[in-house]
Amino acid sequence: MKVKVSRKAHFNAAHRLYNKDWSFEKNDAVFGKCNNPKFHGHNYDLIVSVTGEIDPETGYVMDMKVLKDLIKEEVEEAFDHKNLNMDVAEFAELNPTAENIAVVIWNKLRPHINTANEIEVVLYETPRNFVTYSG
Amino acid sequence: MKVKVSRKAHFNAAHRLYNKDWSFEKNDAVFGKCNNPKFHGHNYDLIVSVTGEIDPETGYVMDMKVLKDLIKEEVEEAFDHKNLNMDVAEFAELNPTAENIAVVIWNKLRPHINTANEIEVVLYETPRNFVTYSG
Amino acid sequence: MKVKVSRKAHFNAAHRLYNKDWSFEKNDAVFGKCNNPKFHGHNYDLIVSVTGEIDPETGYVMDMKVLKDLIKEEVEEAFDHKNLNMDVAEFAELNPTAENIAVVIWNKLRPHINTANEIEVVLYETPRNFVTYSG
Amino acid sequence: MKVKVSRKAHFNAAHRLYNKDWSFEKNDAVFGKCNNPKFHGHNYDLIVSVTGEIDPETGYVMDMKVLKDLIKEEVEEAFDHKNLNMDVAEFAELNPTAENIAVVIWNKLRPHINTANEIEVVLYETPRNFVTYSG
Amino acid sequence: MKVKVSRKAHFNAAHRLYNKDWSFEKNDAVFGKCNNPKFHGHNYDLIVSVTGEIDPETGYVMDMKVLKDLIKEEVEEAFDHKNLNMDVAEFAELNPTAENIAVVIWNKLRPHINTANEIEVVLYETPRNFVTYSG
Amino acid sequence: MKVKVSRKAHFNAAHRLYNKDWSFEKNDAVFGKCNNPKFHGHNYDLIVSVTGEIDPETGYVMDMKVLKDLIKEEVEEAFDHKNLNMDVAEFAELNPTAENIAVVIWNKLRPHINTANEIEVVLYETPRNFVTYSG
Repeated sequence: MKVKVSRKAHFNAAHRLYNKDWSFEKNDAVFGKCNNPKFHGHNYDLIVSVTGEIDPETGYVMDMKVLKDLIKEEVEEAFDHKNLNMDVAEFAELNPTAENIAVVIWNKLRPHINTANEIEVVLYETPRNFVTYSG
Repeated sequence: MKVKVSRKAHFNAAHRLYNKDWSFEKNDAVFGKCNNPKFHGHNYDLIVSVTGEIDPETGYVMDMKVLKDLIKEEVEEAFDHKNLNMDVAEFAELNPTAENIAVVIWNKLRPHINTANEIEVVLYETPRNFVTYSG
Repeated sequence: MKVKVSRKAHFNAAHRLYNKDWSFEKNDAVFGKCNNPKFHGHNYDLIVSVTGEIDPETGYVMDMKVLKDLIKEEVEEAFDHKNLNMDVAEFAELNPTAENIAVVIWNKLRPHINTANEIEVVLYETPRNFVTYSG
Repeated sequence: MKVKVSRKAHFNAAHRLYNKDWSFEKNDAVFGKCNNPKFHGHNYDLIVSVTGEIDPETGYVMDMKVLKDLIKEEVEEAFDHKNLNMDVAEFAELNPTAENIAVVIWNKLRPHINTANEIEVVLYETPRNFVTYSG
Repeated sequence: MKVKVSRKAHFNAAHRLYNKDWSFEKNDAVFGKCNNPKFHGHNYDLIVSVTGEIDPETGYVMDMKVLKDLIKEEVEEAFDHKNLNMDVAEFAELNPTAENIAVVIWNKLRPHINTANEIEVVLYETPRNFVTYSG
Repeated sequence: MKVKVSRKAHFNAAHRLYNKDWSFEKNDAVFGKCNNPKFHGHNYDLIVSVTGEIDPETGYVMDMKVLKDLIKEEVEEAFDHKNLNMDVAEFAELNPTAENIAVVIWNKLRPHINTANEIEVVLYETPRNFVTYSG
């Protein structure tokens, strides 16, 4: 009896999308106003899901409070009210697109969750743009 | 041409999370304030999805009105404005975690839906905590 | 330049609606399934608004973090994961309808907020039922 | 590293559900008030998802602006503020149920998206009724 | 102790915006694609609020079940799955803009609610366009 | 017959909260992580409401398309994907708190709207923090 349990979290951050190896003109052509060198920002909504067997003693796949605290420690404290390009080591060389942020979050969470369980990360950059990564 | 059709419903209920075979102290350590012996409660949001072939005569996989009425009879009338632990037979011995409630709902619906179709149950305990069960 | 600043919070609780001076039959006729003696429950969403002048030094009417912490101390810690009828002193004799809960919350917050500022409390019992109280 | 990127859009339209080969009575029995010959209507919310590899140069699976513009050209301009039965060629002979609209949208988008990528269409007819089609 | 109690409802309908005394060209210039003679449609969300004193015996300003049933009888049964221009008498001569629909709803509800209480109608034509009328 | 018509819009921006005349330490004590010198950001949701009489010829208080375009020109083009502190003249000397942003938006819109009509601006900095300004 596999169940997927999901926890929603959020963080607010500034970022700029660009490729360091490209000219400003090429970055402008590809990333448009997301390439503003003075940055723009988002309220990111994050849903982390963990799929596994229900523990018959607790009725839990994973205690949501534990998942909530894990997201807080690994993601919110690292990203919230930060400039992703300048304050977060993972994006020093990696363009902080929604796709790449989702992969980074998945990689940060993976070592802390039972390896028998699968992880899925959904990241909303805006209510209209979001991405899903499952490893 | 398989399509998944989904219907959202809701019910309000009281519950308490605990394991009858444990001491109050152990329940408190594991379930925290969810172990309040006087109960707390939630507005549960429920999404039931049925996946199958489109009937070429109607353009429906399953009539949403039929699905709506089935959820009402099997789930809302049994759970709405109830104390899950005390009023609902399925939870007399089973801890009413979101995971277990989703499995119980899936089992209640399964006999009433065409066996050629798959069923998925998503249950929101709060807008930030939810679970998914597909059998 | 008066501005209204608003902060959203939430708590989960069990309750039962009834009038102690009435028979069970009369309570049943008036409160229906809300009169379940074993309780039911809700995820309450709460919006507290404070209206006042912008402080020219901070650009704030009231620091949202302060408002957030005040709601946490006065409302969430008192009501969250509680049985409103049995665990909360204010409802020992008062029917915990959405209307009465909103008035109780307003009265709990009023002494802690600058008297030059007006307070408004919006309380959602469900996404479809909510009440507003402004003193 | 496959990621699913999703873009939300919407359109407003009138429609009527019925089978041309059936009597009015049979249509009424099956489709109820959806069979109103003078039409009714909906605000349709649409989520289109594209799953593929992240391009290491851009950090994108697919530029969301390109996806947004594609949905606008292929879906919104064809369906928005239209009578689906009378104004949209695809529904001249096909009942515009949510299921069939989702399949039509998927078929309209498929030729314009990299064949290495998978497409999923989620269509909300109302916030409580929605369908998912993945080809 | 005046409290405002609010109840959310919804209905789906087709409509066309135009002024019968104008040419098609003028209607097109003013109402654009809302002037489609074959109609378009919306999921209308409706919030009806009633402001009054709390009854000390019930703790209610007005029983939400009574308000829910009143909205169902007066508004949902008259407007849901209808063509507002053709099926609803009030719009035979009145352009069914959100503004006019809100006024019509307010006028339909006013005779059924205690005259000591104030009424407010909020009508969402889409999640981005809405109107408020208080008499 | 006065009606309030409301239009929802949004923009994404980076900002930093601080008072130029204060030390970094004092700014840190007052604004906390909002004082990150490298900025953070938000998805701002904006609701602009205009209250006035219904024009009997159109049934409109104000054409929502005109209001939508006005918000786009005056607010979205000035603020979207910008660094509020560095890119927007109004905040060169003014702390871009939600309160101050709402007042700036109101002042930008006021000259473009019929003086017989009242304007209200609601600005969501996050889904949990928002402000309202009515002039």
